[in-house]
Amino acid sequence: MSRQLQLLDAFSVDHPYLTASEVSRRSGVPMSTTHALLADLEGNGLVERLPDRTFRLGVRLWELASRTPGVLGLRELALPHLVDLQARVGQHVQLGVLNGRDVVFLERLSSRDAVVNVTVVGGRLPAHASAGGLVLLAFADAAVQESVLASPLARYTDRTIVDPAVLRRTLHEVRVTRFALGHGYVHADARGIAVPVVGAVGEVVAAIGLVVPNDDEPWEPLREHLQRAADGIAADLRRASLPQSDPEAGPGGRYRALVHSSDESMAFLAKTRSTRRTRD
Amino acid sequence: MSRQLQLLDAFSVDHPYLTASEVSRRSGVPMSTTHALLADLEGNGLVERLPDRTFRLGVRLWELASRTPGVLGLRELALPHLVDLQARVGQHVQLGVLNGRDVVFLERLSSRDAVVNVTVVGGRLPAHASAGGLVLLAFADAAVQESVLASPLARYTDRTIVDPAVLRRTLHEVRVTRFALGHGYVHADARGIAVPVVGAVGEVVAAIGLVVPNDDEPWEPLREHLQRAADGIAADLRRASLPQSDPEAGPGGRYRALVHSSDESMAFLAKTRSTRRTRD
Repeated sequence: MSRQLQLLDAFSVDHPYLTASEVSRRSGVPMSTTHALLADLEGNGLVERLPDRTFRLGVRLWELASRTPGVLGLRELALPHLVDLQARVGQHVQLGVLNGRDVVFLERLSSRDAVVNVTVVGGRLPAHASAGGLVLLAFADAAVQESVLASPLARYTDRTIVDPAVLRRTLHEVRVTRFALGHGYVHADARGIAVPVVGAVGEVVAAIGLVVPNDDEPWEPLREHLQRAADGIAADLRRASLPQSDPEAGPGGRYRALVHSSDESMAFLAKTRSTRRTRD
Repeated sequence: MSRQLQLLDAFSVDHPYLTASEVSRRSGVPMSTTHALLADLEGNGLVERLPDRTFRLGVRLWELASRTPGVLGLRELALPHLVDLQARVGQHVQLGVLNGRDVVFLERLSSRDAVVNVTVVGGRLPAHASAGGLVLLAFADAAVQESVLASPLARYTDRTIVDPAVLRRTLHEVRVTRFALGHGYVHADARGIAVPVVGAVGEVVAAIGLVVPNDDEPWEPLREHLQRAADGIAADLRRASLPQSDPEAGPGGRYRALVHSSDESMAFLAKTRSTRRTRD
């Protein structure tokens, strides 16, 4: 697996289309092995070969991955709230979860005239450098926090927190205020603002954030909009986790944690899906 | 690879959390092999083991897959248009691409009171049974069409097209009118309406559709809303594929086909991303 994964990992947002020799070079897997493994991956639909003989990741890979509970359910459920938030605030709205020492972004909504922002859906930032990352780190296990505090802290601008003592203080503050604000951590022109999203048993499952211009605009109204969206997502997450017998629980049975469709659709899915053979 | 893929394929929207023995049973891979392969997949972050010893697909798998060009770029670029369309029409708005003989749904926006709809993000329907699928099939290669026409056509309701001669006629019509309408193909209460989304060189790359109640409401206004959204997506796809030297091309270099962020973000990504080492 590791070898195939190395090949898949050679593809990136920078380099989504690669020839076999580029795959070999970027993955460090010898050319002869690369050819055989690419043929296997292609046979399984995980990579696709284009007419010009380059390869790209296949729709089959995305299809498999779309079933990831930590992504599908959360993203589906959060999306309407993120859309509302973006309509109110404009700029960039994003949803992230902690993975290792990084924040991985599951969604980002933007407008054409929004401020500069490096976030890409499916992309990562080191948690200490992003407002959403600080929120996630502040509520993470002590072991994760200590691992970040003990590692070199990458610097993006002269405002990025790179001193472990400052980071420790900041995480404490964020835990108390349930709110993070980063002025120019990743780019001097941008400001990140983030709050935690609370799951069904009170744990922090994600962060939602805004990326807005780094100017004198007061952040308090933005925080209020953010908090309203976070509360809405938390209420939906809680509702999705209620036992089906609870009068407050919507229809959908076990689908409620993963799919966020209309009430009639949820009732129909719960009734038929588990007895029908489907590919998904 | 095939064995690991078999294991990953055991997870579904119905069964997102599985014990090792359920993975073995659902995949048909012997228990001893399953244990070793799950450990390998877990080591690579492609599956995650929960405290109760069940497994689920890992965020790492989703992260890899989010780089799939046929999904990321199209979904990012289409999303604002789909959000507008859903705000106008309500009900369900969805985006699908053809994969084999099926339509795979990349996005679905719904409202709580919308009509019954089986579509799940990352889910599939046989192309002949869905309005979006008919559109994709109508513009697919003759070989794909003939393969569907030669296969048994699954029936969902007594309205589903299961006669190859009727399907052939319908595909011809859809090709001429660039529009498909399915009354109760999947569920008697729902009606699907879909139009093609045209890519940079005039090829059909996707279908967008509405799922609305199967009543006497005229479909013409819905078709107009759909067509406006499809035209908007097509214009953005064309713009994203223009050579960077074209005055109409926005900033972002090769990122334009994959990422749809603000102009300033695109300019920044194009300048820095390819020279910086990142994990995505």
